[in-house]
Amino acid sequence: MKVYIEPIGKLINEFSKLPGVGAKTAQRYAYKIINMSEEEAQSFSEAIINAKKNVHYCKVCGNFSEGGICDICKIRSSETVCVVKEPKDVIAIEKLNEFNGVYHVLHGTISPLDGIGPDDINIKGLLERISHGGVKEVIMATNPDVEGEATAMYISNLIKPLGIKVTRLAHGIPIGTDLEYADEVSLARAFVDRKTI
Amino acid sequence: MKVYIEPIGKLINEFSKLPGVGAKTAQRYAYKIINMSEEEAQSFSEAIINAKKNVHYCKVCGNFSEGGICDICKIRSSETVCVVKEPKDVIAIEKLNEFNGVYHVLHGTISPLDGIGPDDINIKGLLERISHGGVKEVIMATNPDVEGEATAMYISNLIKPLGIKVTRLAHGIPIGTDLEYADEVSLARAFVDRKTI
Repeated sequence: MKVYIEPIGKLINEFSKLPGVGAKTAQRYAYKIINMSEEEAQSFSEAIINAKKNVHYCKVCGNFSEGGICDICKIRSSETVCVVKEPKDVIAIEKLNEFNGVYHVLHGTISPLDGIGPDDINIKGLLERISHGGVKEVIMATNPDVEGEATAMYISNLIKPLGIKVTRLAHGIPIGTDLEYADEVSLARAFVDRKTI
Repeated sequence: MKVYIEPIGKLINEFSKLPGVGAKTAQRYAYKIINMSEEEAQSFSEAIINAKKNVHYCKVCGNFSEGGICDICKIRSSETVCVVKEPKDVIAIEKLNEFNGVYHVLHGTISPLDGIGPDDINIKGLLERISHGGVKEVIMATNPDVEGEATAMYISNLIKPLGIKVTRLAHGIPIGTDLEYADEVSLARAFVDRKTI
């Protein structure tokens, strides 16, 4: 006979689809749901449908948005555009409260090995925004990996000829790290990018 | 301004309610939902409501059940009753394919410190089942902790006078463990419960 009754088995199966969730964890989550009140389970279930239905992408920058244009694009000056790979990178930067410009979400990076070329990510949208004028600086904030670097380089080669300043986030050893434990690539980069004090 | 738009914030909040899920993990799960297809999100959402609506407890043994009486109680002989703390213990034992009797789920263990007395767990139901006759052995399979041991002792004191055999799961060093690394309590218990070979 099967170990789980059907509704539990199905729920465990759904939870297993989440990233990093195996059979044991999925089972633990399912038990939690079963022990919730009817209202709690209802609200959980609705939050899923709701997020799927009401989260769209901003027509201007490609970030998550409830309406056509996101709150950031609506109110901020578009003099400085920060280019990121994914909407979650916007959230990571927003949490800093450091950056006051607008974003542009590429929804991917150029990765020939995965068959992703420049036309498969939202570069066209960025060039269009720039063509409307008003953009003074583009900050390339793609990840510091091979694909991210290549994408940053590709885009900067397109934008620089238009007379717009293109910058890249600084790389180096993270604050708070002992030199001894810093990874070699970051340490080497910290030497190359050293600053006069 | 708030970092998350409302539907995402709500979903992250719901995921944070799951055991062992913090803000970062909840955010990761929420992104996964947003990247799912409409149908996948729908089926996830329905599985939650479905599990909450259709998972009941068996009227006889207290295990998870879709109907009034669970599949195990329906088809198996009730000569041997295995007493466990929670429905998930039933699943752990069922996975072994070793035990062919029925279960009795206490839904807790006696724990005076938490204000849980014998009347707060499903002991009455067990005595009632036994009073109907046919039960020859009761296996106490509560956890080997203070509360589990106390509960096993309490129940066995109630049942033994009725002339029913009461047994307890064996304790000792786990199979595959080096003696060197076995915990002291289990090792001591293994000495006390040593068997003639």
